[in-house]
Amino acid sequence: MASESELIAALTAVFKSSDANVREGVLIGIGDDGAVIAPSFNKSVLAADMAVEGVHFDRKWSTLREIGAKITAANLADIYAMGGEPKYLLVSAGLTSDFGITEITELAKGIAEEAALVGATVIGGDISRAEQLVISISVFGEVEKPVTRSGAKTGDSVIISGLPGKSAAGLVQLKMGISESDFISAHKKPVVDYQLAKKFQGVNAMCDVSDGLLSELNHIASASGNGIELDSKLISEIPGFKELEAVTKEDIWKLVLSGGEDHVFVATTSSDIPEGAHLIGKVVSGTGVKVSGISNLPATGFRHF
Amino acid sequence: MASESELIAALTAVFKSSDANVREGVLIGIGDDGAVIAPSFNKSVLAADMAVEGVHFDRKWSTLREIGAKITAANLADIYAMGGEPKYLLVSAGLTSDFGITEITELAKGIAEEAALVGATVIGGDISRAEQLVISISVFGEVEKPVTRSGAKTGDSVIISGLPGKSAAGLVQLKMGISESDFISAHKKPVVDYQLAKKFQGVNAMCDVSDGLLSELNHIASASGNGIELDSKLISEIPGFKELEAVTKEDIWKLVLSGGEDHVFVATTSSDIPEGAHLIGKVVSGTGVKVSGISNLPATGFRHF
Repeated sequence: MASESELIAALTAVFKSSDANVREGVLIGIGDDGAVIAPSFNKSVLAADMAVEGVHFDRKWSTLREIGAKITAANLADIYAMGGEPKYLLVSAGLTSDFGITEITELAKGIAEEAALVGATVIGGDISRAEQLVISISVFGEVEKPVTRSGAKTGDSVIISGLPGKSAAGLVQLKMGISESDFISAHKKPVVDYQLAKKFQGVNAMCDVSDGLLSELNHIASASGNGIELDSKLISEIPGFKELEAVTKEDIWKLVLSGGEDHVFVATTSSDIPEGAHLIGKVVSGTGVKVSGISNLPATGFRHF
Repeated sequence: MASESELIAALTAVFKSSDANVREGVLIGIGDDGAVIAPSFNKSVLAADMAVEGVHFDRKWSTLREIGAKITAANLADIYAMGGEPKYLLVSAGLTSDFGITEITELAKGIAEEAALVGATVIGGDISRAEQLVISISVFGEVEKPVTRSGAKTGDSVIISGLPGKSAAGLVQLKMGISESDFISAHKKPVVDYQLAKKFQGVNAMCDVSDGLLSELNHIASASGNGIELDSKLISEIPGFKELEAVTKEDIWKLVLSGGEDHVFVATTSSDIPEGAHLIGKVVSGTGVKVSGISNLPATGFRHF
C-alpha cells in the first residue's frame, strides 16, 4: 500500500506536469498550506461538486481516468453556466485501500486532462483514506458579467448547446448489457462543448443541465418569475435525437427531458442565437415549463442522491 | 428520510441566517450554479480539507456540531498559516442515510459558527449520499503578503501561538475511558487563536500545526534550506505544559512534538515576537530539526490517512 506522501508525490507530478500553460496568476501552487493567486479585475466565481462511488459512478463501468474527467467536467460546467471561465481547481479525494500509485495517477490524469481542455489548473487539495471512493472538487473562475437563473425575460428564446439524454441513454444501454456505444462513452465521460459555452456568455439566464432539462428550466422559470414553453418538434431536430430514439423509443422524452449529466447548457436570450446552439422554445408570462406536443411530462429531473 | 431538497433547504437556512455580517463582496450566494464575489485588490488564497468518519472523527465521541466546527477550523487555519484572512467557504458533504434535518442542521451550525468567528461565510457547496460521513471544505481568502514555508532565515526566532498536543492528549484520555476534560474538548473541537494568528502576518515562514510540530518544522527547514533548533525548556514553559504532563507523563514529548490538529501556528520571524506568542527556538544553518534536551525524538508527525 502506498504511503500518503507517495500518493501526494504522484498527484503532484501529474498536476504539475500537465500544467502545460502554467498560469501567470499562480503565485504559490501545490505544496504549502494554501495556494495563492494574483488579484484580477474580474469578479470571482466559485462552485463545488462531490462524486461518491456507487452513487455517481461505478468502477465496474468506468475507468478512474473517466471518473476523474467526469467530475471535473461537472465542475467546469458550473462555472461556464455562470457566464464565467474556470481557472483553478482544488481536488480532495477519499481513497479506498486499493489505491496505489497507478490508481491515483489515472484519477489525477483524468482530472488534469479535462481541466487542461479549458486551460484550468489544479493548485491544491487534500487526500484521505475512505471506505468508498469520494472525489470533491472546487473550482475557482473569473467572470465579467455573471449570468444567473433569474434573468429570463418574457419573449426570450430558449436555446441549448446540444441534446440532453445521451448520458442517461448510455446508462440504459449499460444496464441492458451493451458494453460499447457513443452513448455509453457519453455516460462514462460527457464531451462538454466548452467552446460553445463561451458563446453563451451574453445570455439573460443559464444553467448547465446536470439534473435534467425540465428540472433546470423549472429553476430558471421560477427564479425569473415567468413560464417557459418548449417545442418538442424543435427539440426532435437537434442532431442525435433519432439515434437516441433508437435506444429506447418509448422513453425518448424521459431521456431528453429528465436525463442528467450531459452538461449541455440551456439558456434564454433576447439576442442572436450563437452559432451551433439550438432554439427549443421561448419564455412566456406565467409559471412552470410546458412542452408542446408532450402531455405526459416526466415528474422530476434526474438527481443523484 | 429527508429528501435532498429538504436537506439543502435546511443547510441554506443555517448558512444564510448565520450570516450576521453578510459580506458586501458576495454578489451571488447560495442557490445558483456557482457563487460570485466582487474583485479585490488583494491576492487570493485557497485551501481545501477533507474529513472522513472513522479516519478524522468519531461520532461516538463528538457531536455533529463539534465535527463541523473542527473541519472548518482546519480550513480556516490553513488560510491564516499563509498570512491571509479567510472569507468564503464551499462545503461539500457525503451524508449517511441516517442524516435528517436535525443532523444536517447541527453539522451546518458547527461549520457556520466556527466560520463566523472570523467573519467568513459559506457561499455554496454540494451534498450527496454516502456510506461514510465525509465533509470536504474549500476556503477562499485574501492575502496581502503571503507567508510560505520557505522564508525562514538563519537567526530567526521560532515562535508558536500555543502548546500543541492538547488534542492528542484528549484522544489518549478518551481511549482511557475518560469522558470529559479540557483536552477532550480540544480534541473534539480545537479552540484556534485566530486573533493571535493575525498578529503572525508579518513573519518570515509559517505553518499551522495540523500534523505535529516536528513534521511542520521539518517542512519549514527543508523548504527554507536551513535547520531549526528547539529548546525543550522554553517549550515546557508554555502554559498548559504541566497539565499535559499530568495526562501521560512518559509520552509528554510525543504529544507535544507529534500531536496534530490543535492548529496552533508555528512561525519564524526576524522581528519582535507578537504579544501572546511563545519563543521556542531558532533557525540555524544546517538541516533538520533538533530539540535540545530530547535525544529520542518521535519518528514522525501525526497524520490521518
